[in-house]
Amino acid sequence: MDARVAHNLDMTTPTTAIIPNAFDSDPIRLAWMQGSPPPADRLIRFADGDYGSFPKSRWSFSHFRQLMPTTQVARGMGTSSHLASASRTDLDAVTFQELGTNRTLTWGDAFDANYTDGIVVLHKGKTVYEKYAGALTEDGQHIAYSVTKSFFGLIGQMLVEEGVLDESALIQHYIPELASSAFGNATVRQVMDMITGLDYSENYTDPNAHIWSHARAGGILPKPHGYTGPQSFYEFLQTVKPLGEHGVGFTYKTINTDVLGWLIRRVTGQSLGHILSERIWCKLGCEQDAYLTVDTTGTEFAGGGLNTSLRDLARFGEMMRGNGFYNGQQIVKSSVISNITQGANKKHFESGGYVTLPGWSYRSMWWISHNEHDAYMARGIHGQAIYIDLKAEMTIARYASHHLAGNMLIDPTSLPAYHALAKHLIENP
Amino acid sequence: MDARVAHNLDMTTPTTAIIPNAFDSDPIRLAWMQGSPPPADRLIRFADGDYGSFPKSRWSFSHFRQLMPTTQVARGMGTSSHLASASRTDLDAVTFQELGTNRTLTWGDAFDANYTDGIVVLHKGKTVYEKYAGALTEDGQHIAYSVTKSFFGLIGQMLVEEGVLDESALIQHYIPELASSAFGNATVRQVMDMITGLDYSENYTDPNAHIWSHARAGGILPKPHGYTGPQSFYEFLQTVKPLGEHGVGFTYKTINTDVLGWLIRRVTGQSLGHILSERIWCKLGCEQDAYLTVDTTGTEFAGGGLNTSLRDLARFGEMMRGNGFYNGQQIVKSSVISNITQGANKKHFESGGYVTLPGWSYRSMWWISHNEHDAYMARGIHGQAIYIDLKAEMTIARYASHHLAGNMLIDPTSLPAYHALAKHLIENP
Repeated sequence: MDARVAHNLDMTTPTTAIIPNAFDSDPIRLAWMQGSPPPADRLIRFADGDYGSFPKSRWSFSHFRQLMPTTQVARGMGTSSHLASASRTDLDAVTFQELGTNRTLTWGDAFDANYTDGIVVLHKGKTVYEKYAGALTEDGQHIAYSVTKSFFGLIGQMLVEEGVLDESALIQHYIPELASSAFGNATVRQVMDMITGLDYSENYTDPNAHIWSHARAGGILPKPHGYTGPQSFYEFLQTVKPLGEHGVGFTYKTINTDVLGWLIRRVTGQSLGHILSERIWCKLGCEQDAYLTVDTTGTEFAGGGLNTSLRDLARFGEMMRGNGFYNGQQIVKSSVISNITQGANKKHFESGGYVTLPGWSYRSMWWISHNEHDAYMARGIHGQAIYIDLKAEMTIARYASHHLAGNMLIDPTSLPAYHALAKHLIENP
Repeated sequence: MDARVAHNLDMTTPTTAIIPNAFDSDPIRLAWMQGSPPPADRLIRFADGDYGSFPKSRWSFSHFRQLMPTTQVARGMGTSSHLASASRTDLDAVTFQELGTNRTLTWGDAFDANYTDGIVVLHKGKTVYEKYAGALTEDGQHIAYSVTKSFFGLIGQMLVEEGVLDESALIQHYIPELASSAFGNATVRQVMDMITGLDYSENYTDPNAHIWSHARAGGILPKPHGYTGPQSFYEFLQTVKPLGEHGVGFTYKTINTDVLGWLIRRVTGQSLGHILSERIWCKLGCEQDAYLTVDTTGTEFAGGGLNTSLRDLARFGEMMRGNGFYNGQQIVKSSVISNITQGANKKHFESGGYVTLPGWSYRSMWWISHNEHDAYMARGIHGQAIYIDLKAEMTIARYASHHLAGNMLIDPTSLPAYHALAKHLIENP
């Protein structure tokens, strides 16, 4: 077994464990949920609470809808947009240096090193690379985790541009129910850029972190016997207490996006599934419906509940790269995109402590590199990513089931790979 | 309020209640699940156990995936098959006599009288009538309830034809786990035609009927606090005790289909979602993915968990009417279809007590009329139906949310309407 000792761990992985590699943790090979019925040790059930633990996660991330209720993000009735193919065989040999080590890896190596479930690379609008593994197939859907945030950050930015949402207004102006919570006196902009002061821990290695309470309230994890806490996202958000000041620094907290989701619902009167379908999914010419997980009261998980096909995720990235133009139409105003890609205050970002992202910023739920390629990203735990490189005219969509949650721990074998590929495509068009 | 006093009732409707009509029970009008958050008296939650009670049911039947976990029935990546339109305005005026009364109704009246959520009529392969109401739209999905059975009855019949499943073999031959249950010594054919002797009540008006235990085991209803009964469909089926003899009479019991589902999984090694997609859904050129509800162990509800779009349901009906040929290909062997449409023993059927279905029979989970039009049906509680009239070259697909569960109670305003429409189309081609 070509095993690696993990250098950091999420809450579900014992610290001294030998972590199976991509091959040994392959969910088809491990036969999760196969058999009629599956044997007890191959069963993955929501009620057991461990569906997200590695290596079960490698099956679960492609099967969220079998574990919890969801709502449709309809693609509509139209034909899907064409993704031209220009497959290249030279990319697997592209080399890069792992961040923080002397190790040289190839693009081909990085696929398994990152526990990739599927990756699509578009160059100048054509598919130059597409590969699937494990439980994900071209007609399946995969959890996007916090890549979800970037969808609703975009929609929030659209509503700001349209004047429907005033970015300088306080949250309590739109949502009086949050007046006495930490969010009440934050501005819409502060929430959209996550420069809020909230008593909320998102440390996945800490079993007492608030993120787990949030997950239980939102129906992402089972509620323990005798649970008396918040029953829904709406209830949870009203319990959040302040910690520190708003507007002084970036601290990445998922609940900001759930408040943004609430704002979007409040000002449009629509569900998030409906508005995402109507404004984005239908217009992109997606091949498949997407879906959002919902809590027990039917409320979508804006902070991390989107599941899509990989190619549809790439279509969305291409629309962003095209300044909002895709599938023969201006889907989003270019001024909305440029407002996002200009980025935000880099000093604010530094306080987030993202050592793998020096000089980056966070704007409207997007990660802006400010590098020489004007690259920017949507990022989700366990390796979910959209990577848009403007100079290289390249869009990457990746779904993964890495045993580690935090992307800072996955960046060493993914960020330099993206950048090396971009340079290769520029030099070898 | 144009209310009617119900002449029979499902368990969730008090016997002396005034039942709101289609207009007064319209789910959009009643604003179920609208608002951020929806007010408490507009909230529909799985945990409350009453999502299926009228009039909440009128929202829930189009939103099953928001209430419980589901699995995808993929349409695949191809283009959808074309449903030619030849819309007719003369059909609403077609009249018929309600069964058992002297009342004359029109086709147009029947739409609301049956609490129809959507209906499509195809004549000679073209859409002559299509109408939606309430919570169902052309890009939404609706629960098919026991229409689901006919899909798996068809697949079972295909496997018999292919020699993969021996219809004369005993269930325990394929499923040793059922050897000591009532199913063990029944033949595959007896299960497929529901001529089994099972201690199982499917009386929806009796709160103690076995159907509710089955629903709790299968995750269709919440498990009460302290529940210690079967945790899954697989566990439930093993508890079923015999009552009477196999092979002597038709008694409609959903669990026969769940055993058929188990058989299909066992002999193919595939999930029902996969096999339905691969053999039927992809080939029909469906417009949308369908989905199946699953229990807490991921097992599909073969007896009633399918949700589809209305037009895709009509495509399936057209494939059946075309002796298995549709979308330019022979999807199912014509011998499989004719084996079903020949029907079964009418004497056996009489013991089922279906007074609205004189002279009918039940074969491989399909309802065969043996009438002068060679009509046959798939039927589900609360008014779900596929009605295929061979002589009239007519296929009807209907989704509904009637306040009554049993179709015998809905037949008076639906069966004669279907037949009258067929005669009208023959006389006015």
